[in-house]
Amino acid sequence: MSEFKQVTIEEMEAATERLLETAARVGADTYQVRVKNQSPHCKFGEQGVCCRICTMGPCRITPKAPRGICGCDAHGIVGRNFVRFTAGGGATHSDHGREICFELMAAKPEGPFKVSDPEKLLRIAKEWDVETEGKDIYDLAHEMAELAAMEYGKVRGFQNWIKRAPEHTQKLWIDNEVAPRAVDREVSTCMHMTHMGNSSKAEALVRQSLRMGMADGWGGSMTGTEFSDIMFGTPMPVDTEANLGVMKEDCVNIVMHGHDPSLSEFIVNLSDSPEMLARAKAVGAKGIVVSGICCTGNEITMRRGIPMVGNFLAQENVILTGACEAIVVDVQCIFPALGPLTKCFHTKFYTTSKICQQPMSEFIHFTTDNAMDVATQIVEEAIDNFKNRKKDLVHIPQLKAKATVGYSVEAIVKQLDTVTNSQVDKTGTTLPLIECITSGVIRGAVAMVGCNNPKVRPDYLHIELMKKLIANDIVIIASGCSAQAAARAGLMDKAAKEICGAGLKRVCELADIPPVLHMGSCVDISRMVVLASELAKDSGLNISQLPVVGCAPEYMSEKAISIGNYVVATGIETFLGVDPYVSGSSEVTEWLTSGIRDWVEAAYHIYEDHDLDRMTQGMIDCIEEKRAAIGI
Amino acid sequence: MSEFKQVTIEEMEAATERLLETAARVGADTYQVRVKNQSPHCKFGEQGVCCRICTMGPCRITPKAPRGICGCDAHGIVGRNFVRFTAGGGATHSDHGREICFELMAAKPEGPFKVSDPEKLLRIAKEWDVETEGKDIYDLAHEMAELAAMEYGKVRGFQNWIKRAPEHTQKLWIDNEVAPRAVDREVSTCMHMTHMGNSSKAEALVRQSLRMGMADGWGGSMTGTEFSDIMFGTPMPVDTEANLGVMKEDCVNIVMHGHDPSLSEFIVNLSDSPEMLARAKAVGAKGIVVSGICCTGNEITMRRGIPMVGNFLAQENVILTGACEAIVVDVQCIFPALGPLTKCFHTKFYTTSKICQQPMSEFIHFTTDNAMDVATQIVEEAIDNFKNRKKDLVHIPQLKAKATVGYSVEAIVKQLDTVTNSQVDKTGTTLPLIECITSGVIRGAVAMVGCNNPKVRPDYLHIELMKKLIANDIVIIASGCSAQAAARAGLMDKAAKEICGAGLKRVCELADIPPVLHMGSCVDISRMVVLASELAKDSGLNISQLPVVGCAPEYMSEKAISIGNYVVATGIETFLGVDPYVSGSSEVTEWLTSGIRDWVEAAYHIYEDHDLDRMTQGMIDCIEEKRAAIGI
Repeated sequence: MSEFKQVTIEEMEAATERLLETAARVGADTYQVRVKNQSPHCKFGEQGVCCRICTMGPCRITPKAPRGICGCDAHGIVGRNFVRFTAGGGATHSDHGREICFELMAAKPEGPFKVSDPEKLLRIAKEWDVETEGKDIYDLAHEMAELAAMEYGKVRGFQNWIKRAPEHTQKLWIDNEVAPRAVDREVSTCMHMTHMGNSSKAEALVRQSLRMGMADGWGGSMTGTEFSDIMFGTPMPVDTEANLGVMKEDCVNIVMHGHDPSLSEFIVNLSDSPEMLARAKAVGAKGIVVSGICCTGNEITMRRGIPMVGNFLAQENVILTGACEAIVVDVQCIFPALGPLTKCFHTKFYTTSKICQQPMSEFIHFTTDNAMDVATQIVEEAIDNFKNRKKDLVHIPQLKAKATVGYSVEAIVKQLDTVTNSQVDKTGTTLPLIECITSGVIRGAVAMVGCNNPKVRPDYLHIELMKKLIANDIVIIASGCSAQAAARAGLMDKAAKEICGAGLKRVCELADIPPVLHMGSCVDISRMVVLASELAKDSGLNISQLPVVGCAPEYMSEKAISIGNYVVATGIETFLGVDPYVSGSSEVTEWLTSGIRDWVEAAYHIYEDHDLDRMTQGMIDCIEEKRAAIGI
Repeated sequence: MSEFKQVTIEEMEAATERLLETAARVGADTYQVRVKNQSPHCKFGEQGVCCRICTMGPCRITPKAPRGICGCDAHGIVGRNFVRFTAGGGATHSDHGREICFELMAAKPEGPFKVSDPEKLLRIAKEWDVETEGKDIYDLAHEMAELAAMEYGKVRGFQNWIKRAPEHTQKLWIDNEVAPRAVDREVSTCMHMTHMGNSSKAEALVRQSLRMGMADGWGGSMTGTEFSDIMFGTPMPVDTEANLGVMKEDCVNIVMHGHDPSLSEFIVNLSDSPEMLARAKAVGAKGIVVSGICCTGNEITMRRGIPMVGNFLAQENVILTGACEAIVVDVQCIFPALGPLTKCFHTKFYTTSKICQQPMSEFIHFTTDNAMDVATQIVEEAIDNFKNRKKDLVHIPQLKAKATVGYSVEAIVKQLDTVTNSQVDKTGTTLPLIECITSGVIRGAVAMVGCNNPKVRPDYLHIELMKKLIANDIVIIASGCSAQAAARAGLMDKAAKEICGAGLKRVCELADIPPVLHMGSCVDISRMVVLASELAKDSGLNISQLPVVGCAPEYMSEKAISIGNYVVATGIETFLGVDPYVSGSSEVTEWLTSGIRDWVEAAYHIYEDHDLDRMTQGMIDCIEEKRAAIGI
């Protein structure tokens, strides 16, 4: 057992400072400078009371102008903006899921797209009442992919996946009109309801925002997760590393950034090939290091143990090392700043999706037809670019932490089986975890998710909240940039049990897990709601009764709000550290933080001041109240 | 032949002034006051350079802050906002079309939803390669409605309707990636592409905005139009009246407002029934007057000759007459101001769609199951409300003009047949119109469309542009609020030939038409592109070669931009009198006003100053250039 070595937020900040010196030397623009330029932010926009939905405006609500030109008040304007914010996130996650469907349609035994987890495919086919008997696995994969793609546009009915939830929860959804219909239809409904002269009633708008979130989490995102597992394998625990120090000065460094798991899989495969290693050696490099940022990084770390070089706000740092031969992006959360920034270095900036077309990038369209060609071209060009490094600009901060990742629901259940007595206990359930919670050895669980954001000291809340929670015997499941913050700080090192409370420490030892479990990318928050459903079914409780809360302390993306909406709609109290532009409406705020509890048994807790202690205490109180309510 | 009596803009403005006195008396808020309160508008918003797409912001582009926090520049921000603006419009129109599909699915011989134009149903079935032989017309209707609904979500392929366009145009669309896929998928793609960290390249964003518009005009809107015709009948010329004077002081006045034709059809039917007339008489009214505003008004005027009381900016005036017993709305362009305003009068304000839920309204959910019950309840309550009028507040301005409306493509072709020599000429084509244009008797045609907007003197450009154009022998086809402006001014009176140039006057006489042809509601702009396609096919020219332009001089709605995008993408130069929040990006502006011509052979002409003379001359020049280019 190795000794626990935490990487502190101060060390990370010092590393960033050093890289910003390089930025200053080359005259590069970075987000830190742009934040200053953009401060202070427009108060109307921050409060959500600015409306640009028609060209009569823009209109802004003030005490002297309490209604826009059409007569819409602050509640209508804030509500509409909130619905569209959610629609942006829900459409984005879900469209990612659709891409996965199209790739699975193109799967064949000889690859490059293959069925890697036929067991999961069969399991889902049964869930969806699809006949599997005697079918070729690829025929079944194509049939299922087609059905999944139809979930985006079917004329009637709710999303297939909602049947996974406890019956009680399903009934709440249907009775309260938040059960999601076709994914894309929910997006269109959001846009229609918020068009000039449609809904201006806060209640109606908040309700649709929840249904939109549901279409994401219990629709498009779940499809993204499950069908990615079918193609690329369901994650199982694997050791890796995180932070900028995973890049190697003497190697070709390729950084994968974005959210789609596909291209990165092929690049990972290729970078291990003897041909590419030989090519790398020929240009004087010792090898090829592929590392990941954002959720593309999470996808390949979860399945392949590829190191996580950083999260959202570290994307410029990677270039600033001067040692990045290529940053290869697919979709979402890609700074348009990367174009101009990479031009200050030798770094090649590849965009690969029609969804994400950016100036000053090299665009190579990645499709199911040319997957290996694109991957090969990029890896080869990256290797050949090694010689173009400006040596005096190279500096890789030597920060690095160990991490064990890969905790899909299947992996968690499997891990829990190791602590059951197979002679006595039922295996393949969440019962051992429920026992730990019931006995109080673990007090509860927090799902830590979401991006980071310069409005909050970056990664500070992610890391410090987790440290406080695990010290209080609360186990963390994490995804997205939050998971990467944890990994970079060392909290996914099994040795991090040392900073846990005695109960959680004991559980970590027995189950051989770190106290912060990496559950994957942002679309994989669908794994978390499935886990919550399993816990509810195994315990006989409703999801809303479980001592489990969600938290996105530093998020910035529309996706995070779409996620928040489905997490609360699933019955899980959700803590936000950044206001989603709703403070300008008491009604919308009231619905989100209280009123929706009547529909879905959970609501938001918004901490506009993102205060660490208050948020920690808020979550602990919430967990303890839930424990008390069920008498444990 | 009656003498021509024009209603001037000054008369209309005087009538409004008088009504505003009533508003002042009752302490009511009106848009004129709110415009003052909201002026000046935020310059960042007006230029499109404000971004609220993630919670790192809002960010605003200035010379000192040329990039947002993520690094997105003005072109990316403006482009993204423009895509989302289009998506709002496209989703809105299209969702209207979807409702029509669901209603057709519920059609049955005994009603209330019926097949009124089986011929059109059969014709479209043939277009879509659906077997019709031996099928019950209602079975076919249901089958077609199901197929049409699938156009919103089908997994692959382009919209069915695009096959109606000339092959040349179809090829442009496909080659340039603006051919629309499933309607809702285009909405989701718009939201995904514009999510934080996706596309920031103006070209890519403008391209998607066109494809989104195409999914509206050659998708959802065309479905809305065609399937409404199947259910409620294809419009044929009918006489009616327009302006506030259509309301009658001694009658129960019910005003229908919104965009959906369904509920209004039933209310029109009921208001003619002996039972309801008797009920009206029992409360002391002489009868029941149903009139319409916005596109619901256009739908029932086109099919039933129901008078048009006003357009978008007249919606408050209707209440201010003090003589409106009920304003019944379905979806879109409904001022949230109507709630508080109606509370100052006896007027009942009914909202009927989940899409449009507004505070201070009575919500009665109109569905296919309860259609007649809802209509009955509303008409009865409106009648019973007659006695609650505050008599001293009643004042109906006595402005009224005659109009002949109902010019669907089928009606126009039929009308043209009356001037063909059936012994010699082919009937059922647009050839007589082409001959008029070729010979120069008519110089060309302008499609006048779109809302009004306080940024422009309301209705001034609509009316004055039309007057100047018809004086220059340019025939007008009009829809939406533009058509209602024309009708209110008298320009749809056949006697308006008197103010036309000699050529157009002669054509109006021969064909027995007004110089401004009412083609319907905003979704019916799909009729206009079908007409342009027919003209192209009949003439052997490309659409872009026809001396035809589009113009939305005063629009305010996202739908108008979605329309604009499909009109230009169809190959028709389009003139806007209001900037669609793109002036902050030279690149986006350049693409829209020029660059897209390489893809679709037409582009936008934006007149930010909305100058009457410059716009008139711009359109005339454009028409004359097109004439010169084809040597006519």
